[in-house]
Amino acid sequence: MAAFDIEISEVGPRDGLQSIQTIMPLEAKKAWIKAEFEAGVPEIEVGSFVPAKLLPQMADTAALVDYARTLEGLTIAALVPNFRGAQNAIDAGAHKISIPLSVSETHSLKNVNRTHDQMIEEVTKIAAYIQSLPKEKQPFFEGSLSTAFGCTIEGPIATQKVTEIAERLMKAGVNEVGLSDTTGYATPNHLVTLIKAVKSAVGEENLTGLHLHNTRGVGLANVVVALENGITTFDASLGGLGGCPFAPGASGNIVTEDLVYMLDSMGLKTGIDLEKLCAVRDIVQKALPQEELYGFLPHAGLPKGYPKGYQTTSS
Amino acid sequence: MAAFDIEISEVGPRDGLQSIQTIMPLEAKKAWIKAEFEAGVPEIEVGSFVPAKLLPQMADTAALVDYARTLEGLTIAALVPNFRGAQNAIDAGAHKISIPLSVSETHSLKNVNRTHDQMIEEVTKIAAYIQSLPKEKQPFFEGSLSTAFGCTIEGPIATQKVTEIAERLMKAGVNEVGLSDTTGYATPNHLVTLIKAVKSAVGEENLTGLHLHNTRGVGLANVVVALENGITTFDASLGGLGGCPFAPGASGNIVTEDLVYMLDSMGLKTGIDLEKLCAVRDIVQKALPQEELYGFLPHAGLPKGYPKGYQTTSS
Repeated sequence: MAAFDIEISEVGPRDGLQSIQTIMPLEAKKAWIKAEFEAGVPEIEVGSFVPAKLLPQMADTAALVDYARTLEGLTIAALVPNFRGAQNAIDAGAHKISIPLSVSETHSLKNVNRTHDQMIEEVTKIAAYIQSLPKEKQPFFEGSLSTAFGCTIEGPIATQKVTEIAERLMKAGVNEVGLSDTTGYATPNHLVTLIKAVKSAVGEENLTGLHLHNTRGVGLANVVVALENGITTFDASLGGLGGCPFAPGASGNIVTEDLVYMLDSMGLKTGIDLEKLCAVRDIVQKALPQEELYGFLPHAGLPKGYPKGYQTTSS
Repeated sequence: MAAFDIEISEVGPRDGLQSIQTIMPLEAKKAWIKAEFEAGVPEIEVGSFVPAKLLPQMADTAALVDYARTLEGLTIAALVPNFRGAQNAIDAGAHKISIPLSVSETHSLKNVNRTHDQMIEEVTKIAAYIQSLPKEKQPFFEGSLSTAFGCTIEGPIATQKVTEIAERLMKAGVNEVGLSDTTGYATPNHLVTLIKAVKSAVGEENLTGLHLHNTRGVGLANVVVALENGITTFDASLGGLGGCPFAPGASGNIVTEDLVYMLDSMGLKTGIDLEKLCAVRDIVQKALPQEELYGFLPHAGLPKGYPKGYQTTSS
């Protein structure tokens, strides 16, 4: 974290690719990851360790982790739904693993067919397994509070439910929890309420990351209030990949290019070269010619004469 | 202002329609304005008083003002480029007139062929004319600081230039100044810097309004920091009308529907019924079948069970 103020975690190869039908060939995934690494992106979630028959788009995640380990300095993240997945991710050499726990139990049952108790049991087993490994093989273990901002089945989720799950995750042995706006329901004040509540429940230092979507257009507005409340790590997806094809502009995750532009304009260092980052779109677009890539900055371009006279630090 | 916390000024019939080729028929404009008024929008900029040969899309603005005066309680705003336009707007019965003054003199010369001195002279003449009228015929007179965040010709604009023009506008007799992100260059910290500088130059109460574009995706992020800095009036355009057809999602003005959703979710009253507002899109789309309407919320819909359990006031 020394070289930058805000850490961007690119989740397109996981969250973006799992949301579309097309299976991106391994070589294209490698080219994408390499190009983003070279643009300065410090962390990339390269895939998830789920059964290939459930998500064939993710079948080559172990091979991708193996390749990504040749990119020196890159933090390789992977999503794991359970103990088996965590073992596979750690064996492959991932530096960071995230397990999503749906705060909505209805969603948890529907999504992974597990109750909260069963999920916490998995987390406990994973934590014990990590502890059994030599220090240098231990990944960073994140518990992701998914559907924290509301559930498409249950509707609103009480803040107390979120803090309760956050506490249980910490007790079960994760290194940190993260707030995840799975459903694109987060809005600024609600977000501030949840950040404060979770930080108060598990400790300031144990909530530093956010996973936001831009489904309802308020993704970057949410980033602004999150920055004001001590969040320093943001997931984002190149080209907002994974957006709904029926909604022009309705991207899935917040768009990495737009996020980096905004942070950069605010004088916050991300270590990322914006022009090189935008150039990565060509690689992804060529590999997925039928997918529409989102993002405002890549279309509009930088302001004339940027950054001189535009970048201002917090006032 | 009693009934709401934040005032939305719909500028689609002016800023949106002047940016597209198609001339919307007067009857369709009337239907649009009526429907938005009935959805609770308190102020609508119905057009601009410019020569019809320059902007044929705006040729019927006087007739539109005349019609809008039948909608009791609606504040009718109009853009005027000069003294002649202001006279026509006032004669037609507009409640509020705005004159844009480009802080970039290069842009001013190119756009209206006038120097800053010449523009200030127009403003002085308009203010004197307003003073000569009986009280009940005097419109609210706003001076809009356009290209305040940067110019597509000059590049960055110094803060001191913005405050200088703001002071000159106030001295010349406007009731208030407004900051206008004509070029879509505004970003959060820069915006805060300008709001603070202008408020400090002309007085807290003489800058309450913002005109933002969403060209680079940070429009609603800008709204959030503006709210934190005492801005209470926002221009917005239904469907982000006037966006660039080559940039999916790259709307012109911030989208009224998305703005109202965000404010509503923050517990800020706008007096606008979100469902009725979204329904206005049908009227506009039917009248402009070849134009793409933007906006995230209208595509994604409200969160399940909204607003109960989602709306949170400032924390």
